[in-house]
Amino acid sequence: MKGFFQLISSQDLLSLLDSFHPLDPEPVPLRDSLHRILAQDITAPEPLPPFARSTMDGFAVRARDTFGCSESEPAILQVNGEVAMGASGQTAALQSGQTCTIWTGGELPPKADAVVMVEFTTRLDDHTIEVFRPVAPGENVIQRGEDYASGTVVLTKGSRLRPQDLGVLAGLGIMEASVFRQPMVAIISTGDELVEIDQPLTPGKIRDINSTTLAALVEECGAIPVPLGIIGDDLDNMHQACCRALEIPADLVLLSGGSSVGRRDFTLKVLEDLTGTELLAHGVSIRPGKPTILARRKNTALFGLPGHVGSAIVVFHLFVRPLLRKYSGLAADSGMQRIKAVTAEQIPSAIGREEYVRVSIQRGENGAPDLAIPIHGKSGLLHPLVSADGLLVIGRDAEGLDRGELSEVILFP
Amino acid sequence: MKGFFQLISSQDLLSLLDSFHPLDPEPVPLRDSLHRILAQDITAPEPLPPFARSTMDGFAVRARDTFGCSESEPAILQVNGEVAMGASGQTAALQSGQTCTIWTGGELPPKADAVVMVEFTTRLDDHTIEVFRPVAPGENVIQRGEDYASGTVVLTKGSRLRPQDLGVLAGLGIMEASVFRQPMVAIISTGDELVEIDQPLTPGKIRDINSTTLAALVEECGAIPVPLGIIGDDLDNMHQACCRALEIPADLVLLSGGSSVGRRDFTLKVLEDLTGTELLAHGVSIRPGKPTILARRKNTALFGLPGHVGSAIVVFHLFVRPLLRKYSGLAADSGMQRIKAVTAEQIPSAIGREEYVRVSIQRGENGAPDLAIPIHGKSGLLHPLVSADGLLVIGRDAEGLDRGELSEVILFP
Repeated sequence: MKGFFQLISSQDLLSLLDSFHPLDPEPVPLRDSLHRILAQDITAPEPLPPFARSTMDGFAVRARDTFGCSESEPAILQVNGEVAMGASGQTAALQSGQTCTIWTGGELPPKADAVVMVEFTTRLDDHTIEVFRPVAPGENVIQRGEDYASGTVVLTKGSRLRPQDLGVLAGLGIMEASVFRQPMVAIISTGDELVEIDQPLTPGKIRDINSTTLAALVEECGAIPVPLGIIGDDLDNMHQACCRALEIPADLVLLSGGSSVGRRDFTLKVLEDLTGTELLAHGVSIRPGKPTILARRKNTALFGLPGHVGSAIVVFHLFVRPLLRKYSGLAADSGMQRIKAVTAEQIPSAIGREEYVRVSIQRGENGAPDLAIPIHGKSGLLHPLVSADGLLVIGRDAEGLDRGELSEVILFP
Repeated sequence: MKGFFQLISSQDLLSLLDSFHPLDPEPVPLRDSLHRILAQDITAPEPLPPFARSTMDGFAVRARDTFGCSESEPAILQVNGEVAMGASGQTAALQSGQTCTIWTGGELPPKADAVVMVEFTTRLDDHTIEVFRPVAPGENVIQRGEDYASGTVVLTKGSRLRPQDLGVLAGLGIMEASVFRQPMVAIISTGDELVEIDQPLTPGKIRDINSTTLAALVEECGAIPVPLGIIGDDLDNMHQACCRALEIPADLVLLSGGSSVGRRDFTLKVLEDLTGTELLAHGVSIRPGKPTILARRKNTALFGLPGHVGSAIVVFHLFVRPLLRKYSGLAADSGMQRIKAVTAEQIPSAIGREEYVRVSIQRGENGAPDLAIPIHGKSGLLHPLVSADGLLVIGRDAEGLDRGELSEVILFP
């Protein structure tokens, strides 16, 4: 039996992700680009707003015509028509002493530089109003290009497109964005004991849990899962499955099961034999998740994940997720929410390896800290994962945690 | 000009959402049900695992055959073949003093009740091993049904399906889940000044920002946006657009613009005139977002949102999002992350209304609190929203916040 070639720390494994780079950009219509990552800066092709707009219903004025007016000495202005909503204000240029009716969002006429709110006016007759509160130049007006002048940078490369960001692009008439391509992730479950989930169980067989779980984890990262089904514990079949994955072409290949050092653990051998593929890591000093393999072939990553789904999930969150985020144009971190919580009971752990303990979180009330309650259960069981809200982290330098000790918890998305 | 019929608090508006109920359940294949909400409890149709499994590579034994063994006095066992991976263990029933080779995940043979790790054995010849560490009954074994006994509740109604939850369903051979239907949300932008984003700008016109923004907000909630385009400020056209929305049938209708009390604000009238429709609210004491309208027609909600996209976003997060979550089977809250942060500067506000101030967040280091930096700008501008990470909340009983005061910030998703 061949051992792990070198156990490395989780931090060291994360450093290995530095050698992968974001995927190529692709143009995507706005309606499909929510939460995608910009691959280049976007500059405004035109000013926003395209003209000076009123922010109130009222009267467009030359501000100086209102200076000094008051309730007792109102300014008298002649009403020179109306800027209809959606019509040009250019035809209604104001002379001194003139005004015109304008609506919220309407285009200010030439020479007008402010808007008097209708509440501060009295209509004397069809052609005359009194203004009894002065306005300053620019008051109740958004200037042409005040939001974005033509040519200014609106959004920068690496931005994650949120609803308001897409709104700005729409406002500027930008119909599509150049964003990093979504990673294609091939998923291979290995094991002679596995059957597809829609097949009847025969003696000695169990259903393939990992393909469904990993596909959902991939989808949760905004990447595209490509499940390739179940491969028996057979070197040739596994090799062929990896080749099929690379032909997709997958940006990332996930092989679950067979990543340890037992007689039936073929993943290492398969990855070693794959042409153009470099083995980067085999074995990480974490629990669960020690039997993790990382290999690279150009910019494609191949991960060997533990067969136990609970362990595979931990490795996914710790290492696969950061890489998918990096491929997508984000920082190579997990991007998961982390909170501080106190432990509800003592938790032992071994010095020299990080432990990720499944916990449920009980929110603290009235300023009390959140409580992390460990969920016990063998690593091959699923129900502790279903009850868990996240993973409590015990550092490699700690000999476990005392009851009531403050620690970090990574929350499941 | 008709005023707001009654300004209500944001809490009162949220209470009005109580009268809406979750949408009907629908069956959805596992691969499409990530983050959907279960509409009924799920019980295990079969035990998981389906048989007693080894959790180690080693030897299946009758535990009592190992009692008392040690390095100096090993137990000698006769190797009675191997349970091949994925094959039935039923054919290899153990007699006293017998063992058989077994792999991680393999089916325990009849009479075997524990597994000895290969590390604690020595092979004497093809048919004989020494065991030098005793095992207890059940050691290194997951019993049949230990994860889920047949008939036990696996997931309860209202659960949001996460990757591990889908994994369990896969493991139990459950191919689809009964989840609440996704809300269909019709989106109508109103205003004579609007043009579609792919059309050339003519004088006095601006592009429709709200349709794109609202569609993305809806998508972010896991609901389905149905943009119905731009409707001019015209009672008949708006009425017809609402009828089209109800025919989809939409579960929720968003009308943006025209929700205030100006001469051109038709939304209230349109909703009042819609048959079978009850007006629930017009005007909420929040800023921005005061001109908010809520009406209901059976279980369909119709919202009038402010025309300014910045205000519309606030109203969406505060009120539309909780309703979409309720329709989807969740609690009627926003579900957004809230943090505590100190204000970077004094922020004035008026007693009697809640203020939602756009802020960027600077994360505190070394235990320092996070800093909320207000982003100034007129409410009609977009760039403050693009710079913002969230909304700082100033309660209706507060007269603003002092610099350095701790307050709650709702983070944008």
